[in-house]
Amino acid sequence: MTDEPITATLLISCRDQKGLVAAVSDFLYRNNGNIIHADQHTDKEEGVFLQRVEWELDGFDVAREEIEGTFKPIALRFGMQWTLHFSDYQPSVAIFVSKLPHCLYDLLGRWRMGEFRGTVPLVISNHEDQREIAESYGVTFHCLPVTADNKAQQENVALKLLEEWDIDTVVLARYMQILSAEFVERYPNRLINIHHSFLPAFAGARPYHQAYERGVKIIGATAHYVTPELDQGPIIEQDVAGVSHRDSVNDLVRKGRDLEKTVLARAVDLHLRNRILVYGNKTVVFD
Amino acid sequence: MTDEPITATLLISCRDQKGLVAAVSDFLYRNNGNIIHADQHTDKEEGVFLQRVEWELDGFDVAREEIEGTFKPIALRFGMQWTLHFSDYQPSVAIFVSKLPHCLYDLLGRWRMGEFRGTVPLVISNHEDQREIAESYGVTFHCLPVTADNKAQQENVALKLLEEWDIDTVVLARYMQILSAEFVERYPNRLINIHHSFLPAFAGARPYHQAYERGVKIIGATAHYVTPELDQGPIIEQDVAGVSHRDSVNDLVRKGRDLEKTVLARAVDLHLRNRILVYGNKTVVFD
Amino acid sequence: MTDEPITATLLISCRDQKGLVAAVSDFLYRNNGNIIHADQHTDKEEGVFLQRVEWELDGFDVAREEIEGTFKPIALRFGMQWTLHFSDYQPSVAIFVSKLPHCLYDLLGRWRMGEFRGTVPLVISNHEDQREIAESYGVTFHCLPVTADNKAQQENVALKLLEEWDIDTVVLARYMQILSAEFVERYPNRLINIHHSFLPAFAGARPYHQAYERGVKIIGATAHYVTPELDQGPIIEQDVAGVSHRDSVNDLVRKGRDLEKTVLARAVDLHLRNRILVYGNKTVVFD
Amino acid sequence: MTDEPITATLLISCRDQKGLVAAVSDFLYRNNGNIIHADQHTDKEEGVFLQRVEWELDGFDVAREEIEGTFKPIALRFGMQWTLHFSDYQPSVAIFVSKLPHCLYDLLGRWRMGEFRGTVPLVISNHEDQREIAESYGVTFHCLPVTADNKAQQENVALKLLEEWDIDTVVLARYMQILSAEFVERYPNRLINIHHSFLPAFAGARPYHQAYERGVKIIGATAHYVTPELDQGPIIEQDVAGVSHRDSVNDLVRKGRDLEKTVLARAVDLHLRNRILVYGNKTVVFD
Repeated sequence: MTDEPITATLLISCRDQKGLVAAVSDFLYRNNGNIIHADQHTDKEEGVFLQRVEWELDGFDVAREEIEGTFKPIALRFGMQWTLHFSDYQPSVAIFVSKLPHCLYDLLGRWRMGEFRGTVPLVISNHEDQREIAESYGVTFHCLPVTADNKAQQENVALKLLEEWDIDTVVLARYMQILSAEFVERYPNRLINIHHSFLPAFAGARPYHQAYERGVKIIGATAHYVTPELDQGPIIEQDVAGVSHRDSVNDLVRKGRDLEKTVLARAVDLHLRNRILVYGNKTVVFD
Repeated sequence: MTDEPITATLLISCRDQKGLVAAVSDFLYRNNGNIIHADQHTDKEEGVFLQRVEWELDGFDVAREEIEGTFKPIALRFGMQWTLHFSDYQPSVAIFVSKLPHCLYDLLGRWRMGEFRGTVPLVISNHEDQREIAESYGVTFHCLPVTADNKAQQENVALKLLEEWDIDTVVLARYMQILSAEFVERYPNRLINIHHSFLPAFAGARPYHQAYERGVKIIGATAHYVTPELDQGPIIEQDVAGVSHRDSVNDLVRKGRDLEKTVLARAVDLHLRNRILVYGNKTVVFD
Repeated sequence: MTDEPITATLLISCRDQKGLVAAVSDFLYRNNGNIIHADQHTDKEEGVFLQRVEWELDGFDVAREEIEGTFKPIALRFGMQWTLHFSDYQPSVAIFVSKLPHCLYDLLGRWRMGEFRGTVPLVISNHEDQREIAESYGVTFHCLPVTADNKAQQENVALKLLEEWDIDTVVLARYMQILSAEFVERYPNRLINIHHSFLPAFAGARPYHQAYERGVKIIGATAHYVTPELDQGPIIEQDVAGVSHRDSVNDLVRKGRDLEKTVLARAVDLHLRNRILVYGNKTVVFD
Repeated sequence: MTDEPITATLLISCRDQKGLVAAVSDFLYRNNGNIIHADQHTDKEEGVFLQRVEWELDGFDVAREEIEGTFKPIALRFGMQWTLHFSDYQPSVAIFVSKLPHCLYDLLGRWRMGEFRGTVPLVISNHEDQREIAESYGVTFHCLPVTADNKAQQENVALKLLEEWDIDTVVLARYMQILSAEFVERYPNRLINIHHSFLPAFAGARPYHQAYERGVKIIGATAHYVTPELDQGPIIEQDVAGVSHRDSVNDLVRKGRDLEKTVLARAVDLHLRNRILVYGNKTVVFD
């Protein structure tokens, strides 16, 4: 991993038009770009075009700081929404957690092992329980207990912390408080939640109990970007596991934990590697 | 398959009590029963005990026609609900279908190849389209077109046909009409439907369109016993397949077809081999 | 399906070079091509570039019969290996089968239901068993019994039949004879086999028995292009299913049948829709 | 989890005979045992019977320390091999690891969160790299570097440590040294390894590279008991994940890590909850 070349990545979305791929590939070709990854998607029904292209900085004729300016005319011509990312940038991630620690342990462990592109300086919780694990990884831990009365206030404290720490992405790792629309809208497509069911089945509270009651033969977990509507945001990643009548609710919880960890970590990893584009209420994942 | 020994199977459910397994296994032991399969399940919360035990008739000290009478005292003692099945009995299956033929083709092919324990003498449809395939398999085909006005009437015709043909089990193989509660209640736990989604997600109409709209990353299919409440009956079997933004609604339909075929066939097979017990709104599948 | 527009598809492979994507997309853009699907892959290690691009004929400035000539200069410039396909061409498929019929039933049923792009005029078998099902679908059936002595001779008869019927693609649907290198080399990347294991595990004979002996917890099936080395050709598609100690060899066979059917059908479908490119001993599947 | 009742578990294997289930269930019934879980398996081919039965100690008429003696006559009558376990016993687990830490992190995290029945007092490695993480969890870490010359010697040091710490179960969490037959035979069915492939495919070294070379569409991981024959021991658990041409060897490694973690953890959990019986070279997993 350490020896991978530094790359630039363009994430583009715009109205579907002829010549889009030609224009972008020509821009890279003329400037001697060595493409590492290129993928595109057209939603014919919605008339939307989305593209991801990643190329090596080394050997590229345009200097890093001039890429944005050089590409802008093309973007203007096609009316593109676009972002430019460099692979040596380390985004800052804050993790929100409540009492259940398995996703937190997993994310911190992965970060420490170097699995993520990014850094985790901050954990926020409405309980004290996870202070020890966070601090053992050298991460700053803030406990912001939430009541019906102080919720807006505590969200403001949290928002200030996120700004202070210059956080790019917020991960809700089994955080059991519902965030206000105001909070959510501060981190559009940068706020990732893990829901412990195969959405849209069993939205809301206690999905494993719902699944047990319904007698399903498969359980799931869903990572999604958070939007103001609860459990309705764009789905990034889902996975499932088989269950049977032999499994109690506790067994569903146990099996579900592994799904939650893996699905959330995959979603965070895809996000941090700039592999995801959102349009409407859907994601395009260029994996 | 042809050389398998003839067996008897007891399906038992009752209030959980001590001594149940001992009583049944003692009954078989005293009568020299060679057990082929035995499995049991206790739902501690509901206080329900369920058991399936299958043994060879050959060498069993109780004659086939006397097993019922010999076991009855044990059943009475524990207040068991129970059924007795013999593996050489060939249940009769009727298939209901509308326009989409893939599940019908699959079921008829499996039957012809000898995969199912049972026989398929009758196909009923609200359209003429599948007459040819049914008749090419030597199966009687009845077309009963359904309108708002004649629905009750046509259901009665269908019920008469089912009686005439001595049908044990009805399979809805993508039958797009909603059956009345009266009809459904005539075939309790003997009426199997395939729903083309991972229930309870996307119940109701056009689940693949719903799935596409929602942007899920996994689609599914669900086989369940039909109850008067639409798509709410006990789930027998489910399976899923991964999808991505590359998949159009048509791709979901295409991938889903294979799920539907396989999930429905598995459910029918389990049912015909007396592997399923229902309690409350759940199944216990002793596979 | 019936209303889909007619498209042209280019399958391209060549040495990785800068400007490839730009050249192809420019060709389509200049000629007013409406791209339906475009995907590419670069194997950096091997230095190989592969691309699939599909666009609507309607509205394209180059007439259908002149596309080949118009694209040739680009292909020459980059040293491309390439093929051009039109979506209204119906390739002819021959199916080889031995005694086990499930894949044959499934493929014929799918063809009849219109799931495949293509037609199945010919079934060849070393046994008489499947004559009835083939002929009930209106397909010509030839029985070519194979012994140690007449193998080469019968292969020649088969090759003549394939030529006579103008067969594009040969599908081995549980055909239990090993074809000679001479035969195999006549259908490079056009001869598809289903192997009833998760290759490379359990290559060779009786894989379910091998799997049972080894006590695996998952079984699989593999569709691959046939090469002269047995079970070593490029893998197109694989799938798996969980098993347990409860499953006998017969249960593995039963569960495996569904895998075989689905995996083989998917591979045939991908092949017929020109979604597969082969390089070295690998496939690139642009799905 | 904390409020679960204390239970006793019998694991039984013997030659298949009539009356086995009756005898065991009668023993529990007569002594007023409240059965929590009972499952059995008969391998008709091998003539082997295996059973797991778990019941509550509370209310059982035989005192905990007398269960063994009371059951012995039954065991003798049928020639049973059997073990008796109590759910409040905390087995001691030692983890062996080399340079790759993901399984170690995962196991330590799970242990700390209370997911495992058992305790992890000891980590042994042939490298220093994982000392910090082990010690941050309060676990004793020993580095025993292995060369061709000192291997037998270091194994003896390890064996002494295992005895000293009274270790019940050894887990090889990506330990890249091959243990001698002498070592292995000291921990029969108590030495668990994770192999980073879907065994028996890609046994031996660098399985992800082998998988990449072969162009498979699915990768896997296998947890198994270690026997003197490399990668040939009884398989406990396997899982798989889909891959495509888009995945480099590094991507396979990345996706495989999650499989390895989950599969190994499940195997360890099943082992520690006494859910596994071994016979011949196979496991029966009563989950």
